[in-house]
Amino acid sequence: MAEKNVTLTPLGGLGEIGMNCMVMETEDSMILIDCGLMFPEDYLFGIDVVIPRFDYVVENKKRLKGILLTHGHEDHIGALPWLLQHVDAPVYGSEFTLGLVQGKLREHDQLDTTTLCKVEGHDRIVLGDFAVTFFPVCHSIVGGFGMGIETPAGRIVHTGDFKIDRYPLHGVATDLDGFKHFAEDGEVALMLSDSTNVERDGFALTEREIKNSLHDIFSRHDGRIIVTLFSSHIQRMQEVFDLAAQFGRKVAVNGRSLVRNIELARELGYLRVKDSTFIAMEDLPSLPDSEVVLLVTGSQGEPLASLSRIASGEHRELSIHEGDLVLMSSRFIPGNVRAITKVIDNLYRLGAEVLYESVQAIHASGHAHREELKIMLETVQPKFFVPVHGEYRHLVKHARLARECGVAPERAMVLENGDPLTLLADGGIRLEERVPVDQILVDGKGVGDVGQTVLKERQLLGGEGMVIVTLVVDVETGEILVGPDISSKGFVFEQQYSHLLEDAKCIVLDIFENVQPGDTSKLKERIRSSLRRFFRRVIDRDPVVVPLVMQI
Amino acid sequence: MAEKNVTLTPLGGLGEIGMNCMVMETEDSMILIDCGLMFPEDYLFGIDVVIPRFDYVVENKKRLKGILLTHGHEDHIGALPWLLQHVDAPVYGSEFTLGLVQGKLREHDQLDTTTLCKVEGHDRIVLGDFAVTFFPVCHSIVGGFGMGIETPAGRIVHTGDFKIDRYPLHGVATDLDGFKHFAEDGEVALMLSDSTNVERDGFALTEREIKNSLHDIFSRHDGRIIVTLFSSHIQRMQEVFDLAAQFGRKVAVNGRSLVRNIELARELGYLRVKDSTFIAMEDLPSLPDSEVVLLVTGSQGEPLASLSRIASGEHRELSIHEGDLVLMSSRFIPGNVRAITKVIDNLYRLGAEVLYESVQAIHASGHAHREELKIMLETVQPKFFVPVHGEYRHLVKHARLARECGVAPERAMVLENGDPLTLLADGGIRLEERVPVDQILVDGKGVGDVGQTVLKERQLLGGEGMVIVTLVVDVETGEILVGPDISSKGFVFEQQYSHLLEDAKCIVLDIFENVQPGDTSKLKERIRSSLRRFFRRVIDRDPVVVPLVMQI
Repeated sequence: MAEKNVTLTPLGGLGEIGMNCMVMETEDSMILIDCGLMFPEDYLFGIDVVIPRFDYVVENKKRLKGILLTHGHEDHIGALPWLLQHVDAPVYGSEFTLGLVQGKLREHDQLDTTTLCKVEGHDRIVLGDFAVTFFPVCHSIVGGFGMGIETPAGRIVHTGDFKIDRYPLHGVATDLDGFKHFAEDGEVALMLSDSTNVERDGFALTEREIKNSLHDIFSRHDGRIIVTLFSSHIQRMQEVFDLAAQFGRKVAVNGRSLVRNIELARELGYLRVKDSTFIAMEDLPSLPDSEVVLLVTGSQGEPLASLSRIASGEHRELSIHEGDLVLMSSRFIPGNVRAITKVIDNLYRLGAEVLYESVQAIHASGHAHREELKIMLETVQPKFFVPVHGEYRHLVKHARLARECGVAPERAMVLENGDPLTLLADGGIRLEERVPVDQILVDGKGVGDVGQTVLKERQLLGGEGMVIVTLVVDVETGEILVGPDISSKGFVFEQQYSHLLEDAKCIVLDIFENVQPGDTSKLKERIRSSLRRFFRRVIDRDPVVVPLVMQI
Repeated sequence: MAEKNVTLTPLGGLGEIGMNCMVMETEDSMILIDCGLMFPEDYLFGIDVVIPRFDYVVENKKRLKGILLTHGHEDHIGALPWLLQHVDAPVYGSEFTLGLVQGKLREHDQLDTTTLCKVEGHDRIVLGDFAVTFFPVCHSIVGGFGMGIETPAGRIVHTGDFKIDRYPLHGVATDLDGFKHFAEDGEVALMLSDSTNVERDGFALTEREIKNSLHDIFSRHDGRIIVTLFSSHIQRMQEVFDLAAQFGRKVAVNGRSLVRNIELARELGYLRVKDSTFIAMEDLPSLPDSEVVLLVTGSQGEPLASLSRIASGEHRELSIHEGDLVLMSSRFIPGNVRAITKVIDNLYRLGAEVLYESVQAIHASGHAHREELKIMLETVQPKFFVPVHGEYRHLVKHARLARECGVAPERAMVLENGDPLTLLADGGIRLEERVPVDQILVDGKGVGDVGQTVLKERQLLGGEGMVIVTLVVDVETGEILVGPDISSKGFVFEQQYSHLLEDAKCIVLDIFENVQPGDTSKLKERIRSSLRRFFRRVIDRDPVVVPLVMQI
């Protein structure tokens, strides 16, 4: 390849957990690594998902040779439908990753217009100025890859999300040898590595350890075992199916995403389960409790998922009884803790026993802890290092760790979204001018139209409700023809506070008398400010007041 | 004392963390232990605080002899202002607890009408049929008590919130000997004990261990040290002041609640600091960084607190620079994690280093872990046991622990709020009919008027915004005089979607043509349903549609 500069521009995932997306380009070619979304925090009222701002990619779409996916989690593939509305480029990923992408594209009616290219571990593909080799990595989903990328300005390693599992079950390990050989074939100029768990010491628990924990539980328990987990965690499911078979239990699966993913994973050979291990929900009553495993959705306390409905006694086919053991083999995502613990408490009220990560080792993170990050650094020995996939403090700490592992201090760099970094063909490096990046809010079919103003209005409406004042005025006589009428939503329980709304009407009449006839904007402004003051004083609430004055 | 039955009725705190409140009564006398509030979860849109339903106390207020406070945290004292509007009873607590209560009553203009009675450790007071002895306990606030209560039906121990610190700093320990002697003087019929940390093994870290951690940090660090903590954690502050003095640093305090509590604690002798240890904020620039400690509010990422303003660069007097070390000596309350980590990330962006519980042992829980709970059970050896202060699963697990510690299986009982339990004068026990309990929502001056309907409206308004349609119709001709006008709040960015609102007007006109003139309610219903369908189809949003039709 001719020697050219290579610029990397993170559009998402640096300084935040989620919406991972990295542009890599020369003057002639561009590739995109991952195209993820982020789920909204509570303060983003009514927002469905958050995606990166893709303007930079769209403006340069002629050079875009391909979109490469490390794995199939939403924070790596979830924004594809929005990008693919504007660009036409082939999408590369493992068979399982593409299986999940297919489902997503089908929902958005984009399946026919998108080229999906399956790659396997150790495949090497050439996309313009880039040659990409895919290395299998162990993560909390099957079919995950890290990448070794040969570029005109040197070799780049992108780890994807990974952990190192040196004694893996079912051969799912991180291909350290692959990374090692890639680095031995030529110095790695730059490594980008997963920072999520840099604050955690030692090694992540392995799936073998989790399976041992689960084995102990299966061997001790006589009643039904109900398992919930992330519905993309195929490897964990394999463990549950294997244990079920080993202990003579049948497995009933309940919940749409689980059914779908199990089907996909079996079809592609990622999940090996005999048909005879399954049992249909309706056949459950024929089995004694000691021969039953239920695999259900709802690990995050989602109100409509299987487990939440079971816990609240609202599930049509399943009810809890004494002797049931529920295993939550999943992480508690911080924003969901209240919902999850409510489910747990309800299960206890119904007589079940519940085990979860904080009381028993039945879940392991899919992200490398510090010692594993060190192994990756020492395996690849990159010249430059940029931590990715983490909040700002994670990036800072991962850069420090890289220095501890031999990267020269000034060469371990913390970038944030929109900070382009150029690997120069002569071996140097240069920081470029920032490009515009943003968190684009998606609400229904609207992309980016909900901004601070609309959010602020939603926050006020949600926090205090609103009061609408209507008044029809005869423009000639200056008299009130209809009103003032007052209606409210989300403000007070009107039956209890009818006097308050009556008093408010008197205030409006009073204002009307004292404002120059015809000066509608002053009238509205006075109504708004006086009523707000009145409500604050009398009931200490501050609703959105909407005065509507119509002139005839 | 004559032998009478004694009934306990939990009004809050059993099956939830917060709003602790327990009624204890005979046919002649009633006492209340704690009167706490709960902070609202996110789904309680606009609610300020949540308090227990006090009807049962108010209906029996003639028998109410006193309100006894275990300690001064909000979940034990916060609901007092609402109860004291309806009952008149003396309030007992330690000097520090009452100091906090005073501030609260002053805000609610109740200071003059309330009798506050200071008690000290080992005081024994008689309230009707009850004699209460106060035993000092170690907790994350000073002036905490457990109680030994002599009743006509036997002895009761209420631990309050506690941990056991056997090698305490400054003599603040749980008075196990006091509990022991109380139990030796006569069998304890019933113990009520703090269940918060029953899921945590071993012992909680002690303040001595925390101080050692902090000592290491002070001895290694040369720059400024900025400490944030719960503003009622006087003991932790004492450690910080002591270390500051030891290492030749002065302490500047910033943030109202800290200033107020430090003043109170010094005045009452709970906090021993020389005047010369303090430095005013404005004198800070005169000191080298190595001689500065800043004690600031904002441990939960509260947007207006000192630390958040420092982190966002909006603090008038303080800005972060390289070499600053921030110690978050406090727990991350789950609902606040996003806000807290945002503050941490911003501090890193400004060049500070930040330590917090998950990366360094600089915070300890104030609640007993399992081994400590066992010690309490073995010290008191109660005949009956009822776990308090915990979510349902905590209560179940604490009851089991009591059985492990020798309480007869059927005598360790899980109650929830509103489940009265009677200790019979003959030594038996009886469960009574449930009394009505509730979580009463306080919003401004409104207590309990915001119910499911209003909350649901707020949720819809907050999630999707609203659209108001106005129409003035001539009742005689059936013609439209004004409108249709459409205005929205929190729905879309109107400039971008003006065509959408224009189309909506056409739909309204269309409906108007097809509805029988004068049938306003049908007109409104059709407008509401058609516009909702239209918005769902075109933009996939579902705002609250408010049709206002005025007839002249």
